[in-house]
Amino acid sequence: MTINKITIPARHARAALVKRRQKVRVINTHGSQVVDCWALNIKDLREYMSMEHCRVDLERYKPKTGDTMVTNQRRPILKIMEDTREGSHDTLLAACDRYRYENLGCTEYHRNCTDNFWEAMVALNLKPAELPSPFNLWQNTPVDADGAILPNPPISKRGDYIVMRAEMDLVICLSACPQDITSICGNRPRNAHFEIY
Amino acid sequence: MTINKITIPARHARAALVKRRQKVRVINTHGSQVVDCWALNIKDLREYMSMEHCRVDLERYKPKTGDTMVTNQRRPILKIMEDTREGSHDTLLAACDRYRYENLGCTEYHRNCTDNFWEAMVALNLKPAELPSPFNLWQNTPVDADGAILPNPPISKRGDYIVMRAEMDLVICLSACPQDITSICGNRPRNAHFEIY
Repeated sequence: MTINKITIPARHARAALVKRRQKVRVINTHGSQVVDCWALNIKDLREYMSMEHCRVDLERYKPKTGDTMVTNQRRPILKIMEDTREGSHDTLLAACDRYRYENLGCTEYHRNCTDNFWEAMVALNLKPAELPSPFNLWQNTPVDADGAILPNPPISKRGDYIVMRAEMDLVICLSACPQDITSICGNRPRNAHFEIY
Repeated sequence: MTINKITIPARHARAALVKRRQKVRVINTHGSQVVDCWALNIKDLREYMSMEHCRVDLERYKPKTGDTMVTNQRRPILKIMEDTREGSHDTLLAACDRYRYENLGCTEYHRNCTDNFWEAMVALNLKPAELPSPFNLWQNTPVDADGAILPNPPISKRGDYIVMRAEMDLVICLSACPQDITSICGNRPRNAHFEIY
């Protein structure tokens, strides 16, 4: 079995096709990088991994090892097989976008996960109808007892990884979040990597 | 000022146009009814109230009186002016759909909020590109200390209402949730009402 390690360049996204039963290992190479993750049914891009449907199915807002993420048709799409930093991921918050950075005071264009998603899809000649809300790997934004969502820096460490198994033929998109204004990415966007095997 | 009270028939949805600065009062007429709420920019239906963007903006998963709900372009769309049962609403869970009821064991078609949304939009000759995740009024599904999302029955009472002010010209869609298998609607779908003034 050949494993190709694919680089997700800092502030950019990469997408790749994954066959049913193949696994994807996403690696937090430097430890502090949030990676926005999307998965879409390659046979029908209108069906995609949906955070709001996952939360219904899992009855929990943070997935655990063994959990199966579902689509907006409530079908299995990715199963979490291994996770070296369980509970460190977010399902609640939208991908960053130009509006987010404008609101944060940016007066020039700031790279963002939303545009990264479209850029990576176009690179594969794919045209999804919409942008799903992402599975934010290693984004440490838990809900506290008062219902506040805390914008904490990552607790992940260098080399942390998560392995997810494809439950259908799909396209996965992974964006190394360009957030460098708030501290949720540890203030310094870095490369990350993934493998498909 | 004329106020027309519009009935949301049990298990169905109604949509209506709302001008900027008009208010919408949604009334839980019988007390135990969950009402799924959507709002879309009438000038561009690709812009809509987005739960995942609201959670970023509010830094909280439950909106309070005075909070402004935002769109997927992070612009104000609905401001919560009054709420007789603050904190009793949900932003986390997907609208019910045919797949949800199939998974719950239904062998025949079950009315659902997703189809209700499309039905109400078609009735106004509107064709949104996608189904946003809804603002689930009076859906009492809080996050506990372990991150579980609890499928509790409503705590709302007969006559409870929420008043929201339109921050742009919009279409609002309100679905009296047909859920009668789990207890989140108190097991008996009922009418609800709304007023625009």
